[in-house]
Amino acid sequence: MAALGLVSMRLCAGLMGRRSAVRLHSLRVCSGMTISQIDEEVARLLQLKAQLGGDEGKHVFVLKTAKGTRDYNPKQMAIREKVFNIIINCFKRHGAETIDSPVFELKETLTGKYGEDSKLIYDLKDQGGELLSLRYDLTVPFARYLAMNKITNIKRYHIAKVYRRDNPAMTRGRYREFYQCDFDIAGQYDAMIPDAECLKLVYEILSELDLGDFRIKVNDRRILDGMFAICGVPDEKFRTICSTVDKLDKLAWEEVKKEMVNEKGLSEEVADRIRDYVSMQGGKDLAERLLQDPKLSQSKQACAGITDMKLLFSYLELFQITDKVVFDLSLARGLDYYTGVIYEAILTQANPAPASTPAEQNGAEDAGVSVGSVAGGGRYDGLVGMFDPKGRKVPCVGVSIGIERVFSIMEQKAELSSEKVRTTETQVLVASAQKNLLEERLKLTAELWNAGIKAEVLYKKNPKLLSQLQHCEDTGIPLVAILGEQELKDGVVKLRNVASREEVDVPRAELVDEVKKRTS
Amino acid sequence: MAALGLVSMRLCAGLMGRRSAVRLHSLRVCSGMTISQIDEEVARLLQLKAQLGGDEGKHVFVLKTAKGTRDYNPKQMAIREKVFNIIINCFKRHGAETIDSPVFELKETLTGKYGEDSKLIYDLKDQGGELLSLRYDLTVPFARYLAMNKITNIKRYHIAKVYRRDNPAMTRGRYREFYQCDFDIAGQYDAMIPDAECLKLVYEILSELDLGDFRIKVNDRRILDGMFAICGVPDEKFRTICSTVDKLDKLAWEEVKKEMVNEKGLSEEVADRIRDYVSMQGGKDLAERLLQDPKLSQSKQACAGITDMKLLFSYLELFQITDKVVFDLSLARGLDYYTGVIYEAILTQANPAPASTPAEQNGAEDAGVSVGSVAGGGRYDGLVGMFDPKGRKVPCVGVSIGIERVFSIMEQKAELSSEKVRTTETQVLVASAQKNLLEERLKLTAELWNAGIKAEVLYKKNPKLLSQLQHCEDTGIPLVAILGEQELKDGVVKLRNVASREEVDVPRAELVDEVKKRTS
Repeated sequence: MAALGLVSMRLCAGLMGRRSAVRLHSLRVCSGMTISQIDEEVARLLQLKAQLGGDEGKHVFVLKTAKGTRDYNPKQMAIREKVFNIIINCFKRHGAETIDSPVFELKETLTGKYGEDSKLIYDLKDQGGELLSLRYDLTVPFARYLAMNKITNIKRYHIAKVYRRDNPAMTRGRYREFYQCDFDIAGQYDAMIPDAECLKLVYEILSELDLGDFRIKVNDRRILDGMFAICGVPDEKFRTICSTVDKLDKLAWEEVKKEMVNEKGLSEEVADRIRDYVSMQGGKDLAERLLQDPKLSQSKQACAGITDMKLLFSYLELFQITDKVVFDLSLARGLDYYTGVIYEAILTQANPAPASTPAEQNGAEDAGVSVGSVAGGGRYDGLVGMFDPKGRKVPCVGVSIGIERVFSIMEQKAELSSEKVRTTETQVLVASAQKNLLEERLKLTAELWNAGIKAEVLYKKNPKLLSQLQHCEDTGIPLVAILGEQELKDGVVKLRNVASREEVDVPRAELVDEVKKRTS
Repeated sequence: MAALGLVSMRLCAGLMGRRSAVRLHSLRVCSGMTISQIDEEVARLLQLKAQLGGDEGKHVFVLKTAKGTRDYNPKQMAIREKVFNIIINCFKRHGAETIDSPVFELKETLTGKYGEDSKLIYDLKDQGGELLSLRYDLTVPFARYLAMNKITNIKRYHIAKVYRRDNPAMTRGRYREFYQCDFDIAGQYDAMIPDAECLKLVYEILSELDLGDFRIKVNDRRILDGMFAICGVPDEKFRTICSTVDKLDKLAWEEVKKEMVNEKGLSEEVADRIRDYVSMQGGKDLAERLLQDPKLSQSKQACAGITDMKLLFSYLELFQITDKVVFDLSLARGLDYYTGVIYEAILTQANPAPASTPAEQNGAEDAGVSVGSVAGGGRYDGLVGMFDPKGRKVPCVGVSIGIERVFSIMEQKAELSSEKVRTTETQVLVASAQKNLLEERLKLTAELWNAGIKAEVLYKKNPKLLSQLQHCEDTGIPLVAILGEQELKDGVVKLRNVASREEVDVPRAELVDEVKKRTS
């Protein structure tokens, strides 16, 4: 117990030290800690206690994955594979190459790229050598890659896991380890053409994933900045007001206004002026109207953004996707590095969403999260230049598909559906009804493997025919190749259709072709 | 400079502390540090100096990936995709499902599983919450997964990156972040049937990867232990003598003997007795001979291993793969958790191997590494039980394909080959020879995308025809769909074959079918 006391003291000291590194948005209790912090610390103390021997002095092992992470079981993997195939197919249809980067970067590479979200970065322990952090997204490693290899033109996709020490809400697809599927176009091109392709791509992916109806909101950071300027927001408050505006998809205007006035120090009139703009939605027509707006048209920045928006919509018309794209002045996006067009796709149809657990409801900042957002992105023309020794810029625009939410929906769909998800692709099970035929079964299985047939055989000397058929039922194997003394003598194999139970003798030499024919 | 001084002091203190955590196999210099440690610290100090402002007080950014890691460029990704497809196809042919696990585990999950290699585990920084480490292999997470989900039967593959703070030798495919492709069969089955399938699988994968000739060495931990016992090795020295024996693939017997006698304290006679056994190689015949060995046959353990080896070879005969499998009593394998059959595949044909860099030669332990080893595995019947609260055992056998070495060979082959590696799959570029046809190009491109054709269009308002054709040459796009005023008027598209330069007018309505036909 003395040892446990020491650990607790160390932990308390540690807690004081890291207070500043944890999100403090949620409900405070009197000690100054949030409920989720307390939960986390209790779990940690119990884990340590278990390691130290628990109450009975016995080692109790904690059998779990790290907080906010999960394993994928074979069924989930089958769904994941299907989703990835659809997305990769879309990426390839648009002529993208693919790259990969290490899961960790030099800590310094990530520094100063994510604004206040930086506190959510996972750092590696200093074990000597370089200081490292897990990647927070795929965009910063991409920019580092371009600068490092002096690449000025590329269209690439990258599908990989990223890491954020955020408050997880796993039933709604919010994890600490999660996949991003990124598609980016880097290069100096004529305005809005690659930007329009990104939107077309999102449209295709969401349509093909068949997740129900969706909308893609678009806006431009330059329009937001110009709007803030003419409304009377001081320059230094642009970014912070931007993130307040970003909350409009989950909070009512009155609450957003309260934050602007009470927390961020804007006057009521400035807030009301902002309101008039951020409530605007439309298409090309809105861009045309805003160009006539007596105040907004005075901002050079805003005009550049609106003119580009008009151009963008003319390309979206050619792509025939304007039915689902909305020019929405309230769209702001969180990340610091965007410089032009920004967009976000949301699912508008109710999808089966399981009730959140009480633990998740504790995180107050979670409650309002728009779970419908499945893709986002924009233009970031300055990021590569931050890595280039000479500051050479490479304009970039890209989109990231938030795939975990998609997995959640697909998994729920699969559960509700009567159709069974197969987790293997086995075409035929090599079986026998009689004893002492293991050698013959192994020989035939090897023949099938060598011919490229996906085949299984049970690892028992004398399995019962019933358990062999049951294995086929359980895993969806459509065919059984049954061997017996008589079949061996006749040079045939009894081929059984598992579903129809029909059996037919097939000459052994023709078995491969017959299996191929029946499973093609 | 004061700040820099402080940092250096901190670093020195850190160095003292972590000395024990670093491999000390290589050449020592008088200060007690190895050359590679010094190199690493110098690099680290220079990086910190750069961060602090360097000589001119200016921030100099270090543009690199973390030590021992690399990006994959599109060409490398194309090769990686090809290799994975071959391997996954083999896994699926054998009826395997797939799972995935998080990149980090609770630190405790990895504790006590890797023997002295544990010092190579990457830990995450303590940022509050659980203590985490990056996975070191895929086997321990698999065992944790089985115990956690109470799974007693599964055949699964898992392809993912693992992490080891080892001395990298990147030109020879040794990285700190590297892929493993694991295939494992868990479950209580009749002896040697799943074990034989693992060997058949390795045989198929290495044959299909077409890496030249190979051998698969097999042995059994029980034979090794029995052999050590009858040779007179004390029980507590079994594991350490095992790792000395493991060096026989890179060191001459005399050196191995020296280590046994001088470092591990065996007598000369005991070492000589071991020699008589470990120099033995053969097949089923060797197993039969060893069963008659007057001394070895006294060991119950050894007899069980040899009997299983005989059975294994009888199954390998049915699978017709005995031509490349060798029963080799010198095979020991490093990892602690093996309990039965062990195996390792090596490439026997000289492959193009670039000269190692001087920096790599510094690491003395590197020099002798058998770069030919591309797969390894064995039976580990006790690992799952280590995670189960009640110690319930799940017997497992598996194999891990060391894919980085395969990538290296494939990349070198691709470089030597005249055939160009395509990094995209684009079927057709939509182009124009005249000005002001951007809208028409975009419209046609969208038509092709909507029909599932992989199509690209240059992001320029008025690109030159030559630069459009050049893009096709550069990236291997086989077809160009050319639009002009005349074509638009006639309702046709000029379809050009890039290689032959032939052009033919295709009615617009037939373009999709024509592209499909020509690129199928």
